[in-house]
Amino acid sequence: MAKELKTIDGCEAAARVAHLCSEVVSIFPITPSTPMAEMCDAWSARGQTNLWGDVPTVLQLQSEAGAAGTAHGAMISGALTTTFTASQGLLLMIPNMFKIAGELIPTVFHIAARTIATHALSIFGDHSDVMAARSTGWAMFCSSSVQEVHDMALIAHAATLECRVPFMHFFDGFRTSHELNTISLLDQSVVREMIDENWIREYRERALNPEKPVLRGSAQNPDVFFQAREAANPFYLAVPGIVQGAMDRFARLTGRHYKLFDYVGAPDAERVVVIMGSGAGAVEETVAALRNQGEKVGLLKVRLYRPMDNAAFLSALPSSVKTITVLDRTKEPGANGDPLYQDILTALVEDQVSGSPHLGAMPRVTGGRYGLSSKEFNPAMVLAVFREMERDDPKNHFTVGIVDDVTHTSLEVDRSFSTEPDDVVRAVFYGLGSDGTVGASKSNVKIIGAHTDLRVQGYFVYDSKKAGSITCSHLRFGPRTINSTYLIERANFVACHQFGFLQNMDILGVAEPGGTFLLNAPFGADEVWKQIPQEVQQQIIEKKLSFHVVDATSIAREKGLGHRINTVMQTCFFALGDLLPRDEAIEAIKGMIRKSYGKLGEKVVNRNEAAVDAAIAGLAQVTVPAEVGSDVMRTPVVPDHAPDFVKRVTAMMIDGRGDLLPVSAMPVDGEFLTGTTRFEKRGLASRMPIWDSSLCIQCAKCAIACPHAAIRSKVYDPAIMEGAPSSLSTLAWKGRDDLAGMNMSIQVAPDDCTGCGICVDVCPARSKEEVKHKAINMQPREEHLEVERANWDFFFEIQTPCQRTL
Amino acid sequence: MAKELKTIDGCEAAARVAHLCSEVVSIFPITPSTPMAEMCDAWSARGQTNLWGDVPTVLQLQSEAGAAGTAHGAMISGALTTTFTASQGLLLMIPNMFKIAGELIPTVFHIAARTIATHALSIFGDHSDVMAARSTGWAMFCSSSVQEVHDMALIAHAATLECRVPFMHFFDGFRTSHELNTISLLDQSVVREMIDENWIREYRERALNPEKPVLRGSAQNPDVFFQAREAANPFYLAVPGIVQGAMDRFARLTGRHYKLFDYVGAPDAERVVVIMGSGAGAVEETVAALRNQGEKVGLLKVRLYRPMDNAAFLSALPSSVKTITVLDRTKEPGANGDPLYQDILTALVEDQVSGSPHLGAMPRVTGGRYGLSSKEFNPAMVLAVFREMERDDPKNHFTVGIVDDVTHTSLEVDRSFSTEPDDVVRAVFYGLGSDGTVGASKSNVKIIGAHTDLRVQGYFVYDSKKAGSITCSHLRFGPRTINSTYLIERANFVACHQFGFLQNMDILGVAEPGGTFLLNAPFGADEVWKQIPQEVQQQIIEKKLSFHVVDATSIAREKGLGHRINTVMQTCFFALGDLLPRDEAIEAIKGMIRKSYGKLGEKVVNRNEAAVDAAIAGLAQVTVPAEVGSDVMRTPVVPDHAPDFVKRVTAMMIDGRGDLLPVSAMPVDGEFLTGTTRFEKRGLASRMPIWDSSLCIQCAKCAIACPHAAIRSKVYDPAIMEGAPSSLSTLAWKGRDDLAGMNMSIQVAPDDCTGCGICVDVCPARSKEEVKHKAINMQPREEHLEVERANWDFFFEIQTPCQRTL
Repeated sequence: MAKELKTIDGCEAAARVAHLCSEVVSIFPITPSTPMAEMCDAWSARGQTNLWGDVPTVLQLQSEAGAAGTAHGAMISGALTTTFTASQGLLLMIPNMFKIAGELIPTVFHIAARTIATHALSIFGDHSDVMAARSTGWAMFCSSSVQEVHDMALIAHAATLECRVPFMHFFDGFRTSHELNTISLLDQSVVREMIDENWIREYRERALNPEKPVLRGSAQNPDVFFQAREAANPFYLAVPGIVQGAMDRFARLTGRHYKLFDYVGAPDAERVVVIMGSGAGAVEETVAALRNQGEKVGLLKVRLYRPMDNAAFLSALPSSVKTITVLDRTKEPGANGDPLYQDILTALVEDQVSGSPHLGAMPRVTGGRYGLSSKEFNPAMVLAVFREMERDDPKNHFTVGIVDDVTHTSLEVDRSFSTEPDDVVRAVFYGLGSDGTVGASKSNVKIIGAHTDLRVQGYFVYDSKKAGSITCSHLRFGPRTINSTYLIERANFVACHQFGFLQNMDILGVAEPGGTFLLNAPFGADEVWKQIPQEVQQQIIEKKLSFHVVDATSIAREKGLGHRINTVMQTCFFALGDLLPRDEAIEAIKGMIRKSYGKLGEKVVNRNEAAVDAAIAGLAQVTVPAEVGSDVMRTPVVPDHAPDFVKRVTAMMIDGRGDLLPVSAMPVDGEFLTGTTRFEKRGLASRMPIWDSSLCIQCAKCAIACPHAAIRSKVYDPAIMEGAPSSLSTLAWKGRDDLAGMNMSIQVAPDDCTGCGICVDVCPARSKEEVKHKAINMQPREEHLEVERANWDFFFEIQTPCQRTL
Repeated sequence: MAKELKTIDGCEAAARVAHLCSEVVSIFPITPSTPMAEMCDAWSARGQTNLWGDVPTVLQLQSEAGAAGTAHGAMISGALTTTFTASQGLLLMIPNMFKIAGELIPTVFHIAARTIATHALSIFGDHSDVMAARSTGWAMFCSSSVQEVHDMALIAHAATLECRVPFMHFFDGFRTSHELNTISLLDQSVVREMIDENWIREYRERALNPEKPVLRGSAQNPDVFFQAREAANPFYLAVPGIVQGAMDRFARLTGRHYKLFDYVGAPDAERVVVIMGSGAGAVEETVAALRNQGEKVGLLKVRLYRPMDNAAFLSALPSSVKTITVLDRTKEPGANGDPLYQDILTALVEDQVSGSPHLGAMPRVTGGRYGLSSKEFNPAMVLAVFREMERDDPKNHFTVGIVDDVTHTSLEVDRSFSTEPDDVVRAVFYGLGSDGTVGASKSNVKIIGAHTDLRVQGYFVYDSKKAGSITCSHLRFGPRTINSTYLIERANFVACHQFGFLQNMDILGVAEPGGTFLLNAPFGADEVWKQIPQEVQQQIIEKKLSFHVVDATSIAREKGLGHRINTVMQTCFFALGDLLPRDEAIEAIKGMIRKSYGKLGEKVVNRNEAAVDAAIAGLAQVTVPAEVGSDVMRTPVVPDHAPDFVKRVTAMMIDGRGDLLPVSAMPVDGEFLTGTTRFEKRGLASRMPIWDSSLCIQCAKCAIACPHAAIRSKVYDPAIMEGAPSSLSTLAWKGRDDLAGMNMSIQVAPDDCTGCGICVDVCPARSKEEVKHKAINMQPREEHLEVERANWDFFFEIQTPCQRTL
């Protein structure tokens, strides 16, 4: 059969199958499951049909409770129904889920597993949500890669119809849901082949129907409830066999083989890690690396977590196993073991007391916790787990990936260990939320996925500050499917899309010696060296990086693209790499531009195409001197007068080194200081607004509109200006009210402004001569920085004479 | 210290402590937790103060989600806060509970543990709700009797303040929440002593306060979330020690000693059952009985389920133990073990691999499920568990208390085993919902609790049909605290408050040979024998019962009490028993009357007092012949033409023998036939309405108002009356509309009517001569039964000529 390869993310991989297999899709958005719902909505809106030629009905409800209730109702009426959720959203579905399972109604809920809010909210991934729903009686089916999400989604939709037990199909939020990967797309014929029409007929026959009324959802009393609860046992007992049967049929149709528990590693392994979800990728790479060194190690991936088939688990294990470590991506405070650990322990103990045990002796079993809230989980951490398993007295209930200096649960990790193969290109792009970097990175991945035989992977690290915060795109390109489910720590290409970042964070720490560094700078190749901090120079020299600059900001502006520098930076990435021949790459980029911007009109397409050509022309290599030489130093993250907590903790987080904070640094109950934003001077803007007092009509709309509160207006006694920098503009109060005789100023905080320009948009005062000149105007930040910082320092201290500010 | 004994139920036992220790009580009613909220609301409404002299604020919200959110908010602002819930209510609280625990906010939620709705709703008790919330990070603290509910409530309120981890204090819905028992009330001084004011000061200092603002509930990213989640570990590790400390302080103050895990049984026990909740009462009695026979058995009661203290569990176990059976009152379909079983298994395995195990060898461990949805759990079932533990190859994951003929999980139970001691009086009262039987039984318990040194227990079985359904009150009176947490199967006193019951169900199956049987009958002592079914006569003769009758219905009516027969029947109970001297008993009943009805006025009190005297006068013993002799037979529960399912399943449930239905009888998904109410002819009424066509104005209000749809009106062609019973009244249609020329009738279904009399209340047509005579009038049912049944049979089949019915 022809296999269509396509580079998509986990959400799309699930949504494609879900939309094809459903008639009703009830939705409510919650990160990171939202794209699944959005895609289904968009597909249905444009008339895309399901397997049976109908357009699925997509309904957005008032909350996840409503989405679950609607789903339940739709199912009872015989419609094939699905939904998507995560975290608190899943919690709101629990009451309906108990009933759906109790009524043996087949369905699949696709879950982008996400941390439940506790001491703090987190939008990131772990299994605390699905584990909190494990009482509901749903099958729990886990995918650990984008390809698996696509495949397991179909296996789940098929199996649920056959066995009548509803399925939670889950995969790690962000790490899998938002990872782009090259996968083999399922042909619709495969989907059709997997779904037996007889099951659907039976499903319809069980639907509520006025022609043959039945009673559902009755009340039962102590006399019969218990018996009725046990009456469903045969259905649960049948699930593992039905799922394996579906997997076997799937294998015949696609060539991709899965088992309830998949073992990978030495046939004679003595140490085996049991895990489910994306972490399996990191473990699998580590197992391969250790086996190359002759170590007897293995990995057991859990796919069908519930109903747990003990026999299938035991027979998947090599009989040589002596030590098992079960890794849980969740924490149940107060439990004497996390859930997967306890279930595996139960299976092993019951094997030992059975008449015919699979294993000759009870293996030593330990449990560990990793990756809460998308905490990084990489081969170095896996190595620490395997090393711990070798010890005579290994830690149990350990943590890995953090430093726990309070209850000393953590394992020590040798961060030098890496399993990145040499034939994989690893590129890291630092950008600013909304500057187009992530979009450009995704576009890079898709171009290479489409134009080469390379397999690609794209993962995008944002923080929850959204627009205006730092984004970091991690792209891998290689000859094989890429299952490195962790961040790049050794990049052979690093791009910094914002010059200011060099001041604030360690951009080149991730660069591998001999790699390439592309910088967007407002300086040419001749001048840039002396403008970058000494620390960065040092890294370039020591790592022997090939250093290139382009003034993407100017090019984008000149070509009419505003602050969207993505096209320029993307072009430079292709120009510097050898993934594609340059001409082909340029053609591909232009093709992508037409695809992305075509609907915005020919003008936008032409601007972007012009930017491509200008980027090639503007890209220049920097001759790197042998020694550092610059007056610029990286500025301290927070000022010296910041409170101790800010210096110890907040500063580390601002600096991008929060991962290194030990447990003792964190508040026990999520309580933080207030007023710490003033210590996080992000200095993100490349252009900032400057006030022109000669045009100002004192409406203060600029200050009102600024979404970052970076513009302030104050009215004050003119005498106060004594000692002010001469550069600080002042203007007599024009009103004839009680402020008459006062002066006023409008001032921008140059390190808080993000350069969004909304202030200019709202300003109603413009010069008569020059239409574009207003009372507040964007200017290059670097040119004004020193002066405006001094202005702000004085202005900030001004006391206004009354509560009434402008 | 002086101990005040009082007979209260589990809800009151919890609510008294909760109200005393709280400032804010946010509530939403859900069975069986509602009385706790209602009591707090009533107490605050009448100004009852908490420990600090303030009246707690009681707030009812829109749902349990709101109650939890309000509680969370109140806590954050520094108010001592509690709430009460169960089942789906607890599910709605889960999102807030994760946050409350994450923020380390001390509180106690009192949970009357109730079944979560699955294939069917159930208002009854098991642990599926609290187990579904076990991921939240709350301490889980279990009480197994009314006294324990009172004591543990206080220990929980004290411990949470000291350790900052929030507590779910739970106890079995109905079995404990609604059981009346004689307990030693906590003096307020004890409560004060247990709550250290320093903890409250610290709690207040952590509250949000504009004077010293802090940030709570922030968002955290992958960099620090995991570390922060582990930062709370020390608080969880401290909980068991703090709870044991509170228990020890409590013991010094009250003399009642508790441990985290309390062991009862042989010091050299080889077989030990681990259980939590009310089931411990039945196990404890069984252990005592088996030890008397020299068996080496024991019971381990779990009090602090989470945080689970493995060491405390292990040291509570006798080192001689060879087999452990863990009993779970919940079911997690798909899990390879129910929760308590898995936790205990984990503790035992980890003990074995520790450097210094408590136990010399790993005991054999099995798990079983019991008591779902308040399914009976009694010593006979416990015996089955201990017997199974003796086998070489005992069942694991078994069920007990049902017959599972599908997946064969169930143990066989020898129902003849009993541990009821001879010195405990056991009385069972069958009544009709709203006839006052339960109220009278509660009153009996309280009178004896107050007037004697006897300890009492009252448990009341209703079904969820509420008013008009059968109630069964189980009362025990004995010299020691009564912890028999199961229904009476051998009663030495049985009262049947409704004569009709003898026809429909097996009233005397529960009677012990030589016991007393009190019947409310519309027949005197001479006549009654030939009016009761042969099956009942047979039981009276075989069991040598002392048989007494009273016409309580007539007495109540004559004394102006309507259908409230409770005062009459209560008086007869005391007159027949020797729990109190008759005079003292009568005095006590009259005192209770004044207390209960005083607020309704002197007239109501006088009527009830008159009924007491009339009851004594009307009570008569029946001379029991040596042989049965009656034409009356018990009627079949459902007619022969009922569908197979109704005959096999529904009929057993109607007959009160649903407990005997095996698993195979129950639908797998809760689906039932519709239209089965027509086979449940309850025949509950002692009086029924008879239509007087001569007065009828054809308004049909009687049919509209009937809450049981037992009155119908039809308009029909007069020709149709050919062949009608002559007793069926008919009336020409009085309207000048399109029905002119038709006839109409109003007819009552004599077996569906419950005798409530609302039809008479709403009838606007009355005779001019006699004010009390209306167009529809209550008459003794027995007198009209035969005729009205024949009328109904004909009337039921009449086809109306148009859709428009009256």
